[in-house]
Amino acid sequence: MKIAFIGLGNMGAPMARNLIKAGHSLNLFDLNQVVLKELAALGGTISRSPKAAAEGTELVITMLPAAVHVRSVWLGEDGVLAGIGAGVPAVDCSTIDPQTAKEVAAAAAKQGVAMADAPVSGGTGGAAAGTLTFMVGASPELFATLQPVLAQMGRNIVHCGEVGTGQIAKICNNLLLGISMIGVSEAMALGAALGIDTQVLAGVINSSTGRCWSSDTYNPWPGIIETAPASRGYTGGFGAELMLKDLGLATEAARQAHQPVVLGAVAQQLYQAMSLRGEGGKDFSAIIGAYRKPE
Amino acid sequence: MKIAFIGLGNMGAPMARNLIKAGHSLNLFDLNQVVLKELAALGGTISRSPKAAAEGTELVITMLPAAVHVRSVWLGEDGVLAGIGAGVPAVDCSTIDPQTAKEVAAAAAKQGVAMADAPVSGGTGGAAAGTLTFMVGASPELFATLQPVLAQMGRNIVHCGEVGTGQIAKICNNLLLGISMIGVSEAMALGAALGIDTQVLAGVINSSTGRCWSSDTYNPWPGIIETAPASRGYTGGFGAELMLKDLGLATEAARQAHQPVVLGAVAQQLYQAMSLRGEGGKDFSAIIGAYRKPE
Amino acid sequence: MKIAFIGLGNMGAPMARNLIKAGHSLNLFDLNQVVLKELAALGGTISRSPKAAAEGTELVITMLPAAVHVRSVWLGEDGVLAGIGAGVPAVDCSTIDPQTAKEVAAAAAKQGVAMADAPVSGGTGGAAAGTLTFMVGASPELFATLQPVLAQMGRNIVHCGEVGTGQIAKICNNLLLGISMIGVSEAMALGAALGIDTQVLAGVINSSTGRCWSSDTYNPWPGIIETAPASRGYTGGFGAELMLKDLGLATEAARQAHQPVVLGAVAQQLYQAMSLRGEGGKDFSAIIGAYRKPE
Amino acid sequence: MKIAFIGLGNMGAPMARNLIKAGHSLNLFDLNQVVLKELAALGGTISRSPKAAAEGTELVITMLPAAVHVRSVWLGEDGVLAGIGAGVPAVDCSTIDPQTAKEVAAAAAKQGVAMADAPVSGGTGGAAAGTLTFMVGASPELFATLQPVLAQMGRNIVHCGEVGTGQIAKICNNLLLGISMIGVSEAMALGAALGIDTQVLAGVINSSTGRCWSSDTYNPWPGIIETAPASRGYTGGFGAELMLKDLGLATEAARQAHQPVVLGAVAQQLYQAMSLRGEGGKDFSAIIGAYRKPE
Repeated sequence: MKIAFIGLGNMGAPMARNLIKAGHSLNLFDLNQVVLKELAALGGTISRSPKAAAEGTELVITMLPAAVHVRSVWLGEDGVLAGIGAGVPAVDCSTIDPQTAKEVAAAAAKQGVAMADAPVSGGTGGAAAGTLTFMVGASPELFATLQPVLAQMGRNIVHCGEVGTGQIAKICNNLLLGISMIGVSEAMALGAALGIDTQVLAGVINSSTGRCWSSDTYNPWPGIIETAPASRGYTGGFGAELMLKDLGLATEAARQAHQPVVLGAVAQQLYQAMSLRGEGGKDFSAIIGAYRKPE
Repeated sequence: MKIAFIGLGNMGAPMARNLIKAGHSLNLFDLNQVVLKELAALGGTISRSPKAAAEGTELVITMLPAAVHVRSVWLGEDGVLAGIGAGVPAVDCSTIDPQTAKEVAAAAAKQGVAMADAPVSGGTGGAAAGTLTFMVGASPELFATLQPVLAQMGRNIVHCGEVGTGQIAKICNNLLLGISMIGVSEAMALGAALGIDTQVLAGVINSSTGRCWSSDTYNPWPGIIETAPASRGYTGGFGAELMLKDLGLATEAARQAHQPVVLGAVAQQLYQAMSLRGEGGKDFSAIIGAYRKPE
Repeated sequence: MKIAFIGLGNMGAPMARNLIKAGHSLNLFDLNQVVLKELAALGGTISRSPKAAAEGTELVITMLPAAVHVRSVWLGEDGVLAGIGAGVPAVDCSTIDPQTAKEVAAAAAKQGVAMADAPVSGGTGGAAAGTLTFMVGASPELFATLQPVLAQMGRNIVHCGEVGTGQIAKICNNLLLGISMIGVSEAMALGAALGIDTQVLAGVINSSTGRCWSSDTYNPWPGIIETAPASRGYTGGFGAELMLKDLGLATEAARQAHQPVVLGAVAQQLYQAMSLRGEGGKDFSAIIGAYRKPE
Repeated sequence: MKIAFIGLGNMGAPMARNLIKAGHSLNLFDLNQVVLKELAALGGTISRSPKAAAEGTELVITMLPAAVHVRSVWLGEDGVLAGIGAGVPAVDCSTIDPQTAKEVAAAAAKQGVAMADAPVSGGTGGAAAGTLTFMVGASPELFATLQPVLAQMGRNIVHCGEVGTGQIAKICNNLLLGISMIGVSEAMALGAALGIDTQVLAGVINSSTGRCWSSDTYNPWPGIIETAPASRGYTGGFGAELMLKDLGLATEAARQAHQPVVLGAVAQQLYQAMSLRGEGGKDFSAIIGAYRKPE
């Protein structure tokens, strides 16, 4: 299949690599020449603009840092919509606000292009291993078209509803995740301060009503879960700055919808304070540092 | 076995019933004459004070509403310690602050009585069915002694460490539970306001990093989980006033330990506001009402 | 003086009226034909676009609802910058984010136009009476030029620094105001619940360290301050939706600056919850309703 | 006048000194022998118990750290009520919970002793200078009796209502103060991060709706107010631990009254986090450190 892939950062590059491996022919675009050459060496073709990349392809995929890039890559003078053929399916895998996702898709629809939003979870590890989760907002027909290709980059391809719902699912899940992680941090640090063994406490929580992914899979207390970032100095997981980005999307969407998110907003501020202290580069579970006596 | 059982409320009465059924001989005490007569009809003996109940028994169990009752029942003039024999094991199943648990146990130890704290989770349903979880703070020897009897009232008997750690485990777990439930409420209500199907959203969360008991077993959005209180008008579960009691214990223990619990404190206030609106009698998952437009 | 005045809403119309009264000749633009005719009847000239309004004037003033309008009125095809002469001073009195204020001023500067931001406080009453406070971000020279004209619409003309600082001053002040009002609400409602006379409590606070404008001038408890909205059913003051707008600007600016504002974010959510309950049209001091038992 | 004065700490000692200077004859009690001897040297008489101090006096005054001390000093075997004569007026100047204040006064009333609560503000400086504010909960008759003596230790003697209302007034004021100080910290730090001069910003706030004691008298940004602790390294004011004590009293009273105090609870947690970082000994305005980049 002839596919345009635009946006070859930490997530996009390994995703594109998996598509090349699967036998697709890729038109590539990014501002980073180094990664372009790497992927060209694997068989991709370098394009000089999103427009040029989109021309003559059967599918367009983008993976970009933020809404501002999505707007410019899709709607700009040399953007995807200037090059894509009518009837060609399209999907943006960036994590952005649902409103922008809908607006760009509406612009695409005007010229006969069905476009989906499909943000992912699973991190750079999942992107490399091809085990990402895709949360897809698309019509049933478009979802059916995209599903096989997305399945070559991920393991769990979830249809969330019409365009925009992929973003909604992701920001709602990550809103809850950001809160849960602080909840677990407060519970673990309080227990330790009061004198219970933290392994025992984690055991009680994980077999009881406090049970959650942030406790049983990604516990922020060092040594509870061998494979969690907490057990390797809070490196190499989901960075606090990325959590901040997602909480920013969630609280901003909530503001526009006149919907309160009290704990979500407090959580955002606590990660913000962590960032101010210069720890935004650590895994987000390092928020527990705010609850432990400095050494 | 000759056992004193003191405190026969919504939780204590069914627990005592299970011990009678298991063949034990019970000395009973409570201020409520009606429940005393009911249990006497099943074979228990009514005592005229905690002291009298404790005299001549091989084990003393109490299940009381709050620390003030625990102090008076154990340390009062006609209290348990005035009647219990040296060397007789003792356990308090009330949910109270860890400090009081330790102080009462220390008073018991002075007269040769080894005492445990063993708060429960599982609610009145679990008490009736004999499927409670006991979080036990006790020496290894005392735990070994108590375990078989507790197992006649519960399914999951967890040894948390020395006396007081049962209370610590419980309040830390419930602190997290109180936070998670609000987190799920915010995520579900935000998703609904933004236009995603709530069944789909719950599905995404429950197979992703937001997964937690408050979402996959006790989801506050009506109709997601058939057996959850949300699907029957928020009746018959764990009342918001009980959650408020536990969050009060957690934030007060945190205050004394100079340990911050930011989200926990906000959660406490949000349940407090729910109580002020006259909804404290509903299941605690009804907190989601604060996030939905009034009808 | 020949002045262009663009944006004739609840604030802009009375401000323009005061300039007409002071003898200036005004070019007027707004989408609302009714108010245009009213002001034309007082002596203003109706223009067919911001560009047309700006042409041939000695000063351009705008007063618009939000950043999106400021961008379009100044930078659009038929916008102010398409019509204004080089060297003509310009000032935007809208309350918007500091970033947009700087960007629009930078665009103006490129064509030789010195532009200030000058958001106001004082409400529609102050606009009508000519007693507004202007918080002005401008070079010292531009400030000196603008000061006499602004003084015809306001009483307190404060120079805050370079362009953008007017907005910064306003959102920082209103961030604090939004917090203080909730703080006073919590203190007054707690005192009442505990049994102190609210007049006495307000008296203690106002002569002590809790003293603030939200307590001594605008107390949210009915009857404490005769002239406050609380004493007339929370009507006719500074609406909760406006407070929400300003807290949104503050928390968004904070997010971009990686600066935590914990209480500010919680305050925003509490006004958001008030809005969800359908009370966003009331004066913002009606937030105290969240702390009083429903009648 | 023959007066018993019990509790001679940082506040009590200078208060007692002022009474001795005013010509009263004092019976003194404290556990600290050093301060007892110092005051005896000025003319006071050392007593061997609260009971002994109270015997034969015309007025009893106590100034103690917390409710537990108030209970033991007044109600203990060798306590004030065991020695005081019927009809002798009594006043406790400690800052404690309103409930304990009422209970101890009720016990006093049973033996014909009218007792007031009269917590103070003004700090050790005010105690030494005799410029304290007394917030008095007492019957009108008792207030009339106490007023002249309290006026020898303070400048502002406020009658707040029946017994307990002195405590209520104090904790409500300090709840608001704790919130305002954080509000000012967030506003000042945000302004600085966004680029406005902090002197200018403080000037705008202090002449606008954000105006409050925490900004215009005790501003937490260094150098704004010469006499504020912020301008001398956050030393020598009202310690964060004392603020924590008062916020603990306020949130606990709120919990018992089923009254939410959302910002108050968050404020308490933020000072708690400051205490955890080892900064509880600094003036409470040092909370602004949580909002500034570490150097």
